[in-house]
Amino acid sequence: MKQTLEQTLRAAIRTIPDYPKPGIQFRDITTLLGDARAFRRSVDELVHPYAGMKVDKIAGIEARGFILGGAMAHQLSSGFIPIRKKGKLPHETVRVAYSLEYGIDEMEMHRDAVKEGEKVILVDDLIATGGTAEGAVKLLRQMGAQIVAACFVIDLPDLGGRAKLEALGVEVNTLIAYEGD
Amino acid sequence: MKQTLEQTLRAAIRTIPDYPKPGIQFRDITTLLGDARAFRRSVDELVHPYAGMKVDKIAGIEARGFILGGAMAHQLSSGFIPIRKKGKLPHETVRVAYSLEYGIDEMEMHRDAVKEGEKVILVDDLIATGGTAEGAVKLLRQMGAQIVAACFVIDLPDLGGRAKLEALGVEVNTLIAYEGD
Repeated sequence: MKQTLEQTLRAAIRTIPDYPKPGIQFRDITTLLGDARAFRRSVDELVHPYAGMKVDKIAGIEARGFILGGAMAHQLSSGFIPIRKKGKLPHETVRVAYSLEYGIDEMEMHRDAVKEGEKVILVDDLIATGGTAEGAVKLLRQMGAQIVAACFVIDLPDLGGRAKLEALGVEVNTLIAYEGD
Repeated sequence: MKQTLEQTLRAAIRTIPDYPKPGIQFRDITTLLGDARAFRRSVDELVHPYAGMKVDKIAGIEARGFILGGAMAHQLSSGFIPIRKKGKLPHETVRVAYSLEYGIDEMEMHRDAVKEGEKVILVDDLIATGGTAEGAVKLLRQMGAQIVAACFVIDLPDLGGRAKLEALGVEVNTLIAYEGD
């Protein structure tokens, strides 16, 4: 019997209890990435809504968003934009602060990574509180990008990230949700 | 007139003089990644020799190897293994020290990321002295992987990395070489 996408993904994602600290159920996608069939299905499903569309760039958030985003960009014949922790990019950057659970960090992209009006899809492995994705949306819009959607394999809806992005007018696509996290 | 692959790549790669320090010509592939055609041709060319072969996993070196490796894994219907800086992976890891220009660092992969006898292709954006790639080869072989090849977009042959990997019996494939770096 053919598994549904959700069954395939749920079986392929590893949950690590109490990581990185007590009470957190860490959803580890490395087991999904290592499973050729689950990885292929995930990427195919992520790009499916945009297959007929001209998407200029996929913007991937460091580091797991790079793995999914590279595959999506190749599949959609788009370019790829790395959004990185500060200090990692060699040319002139734009930078934004974003909220972590405790405190603030900064992320950057190259100033010339996107042109005014380009259609961009943002991708990361997981959306939790949405602080990182919100920062990435601000960076991309600041440089004139038109954000087609933000895509994630995993949604933790109780943490409010999806709602935060939707409040910014961003379409959010996710493949599997873990409630109660 | 159709550009050769080398012309396309040379035009798409940005050289940043004196980065990260005086005398170094930094080869920046973010401009290649952002160019849909150059990115697509690069990935297609990297996977081409292995298209008819069963490759179990693509192992990408953090962070730029993730972008290329994700695309290669999807294209070859392989799984993906992230090889990361120490302390980034959530489950039990194996670790190896590797040489940087000044000093030593450590990289890790999950202990269960590869099974004995699996065919693996290693990928990163660039090979210079080969210290990082050599460490990755050791990690993969330690866990029983059979390394089909190590692939890089850019070769800096004067720095000896290709020769170092070949001396380990690893087939090396690169798309473009910069001599005199």
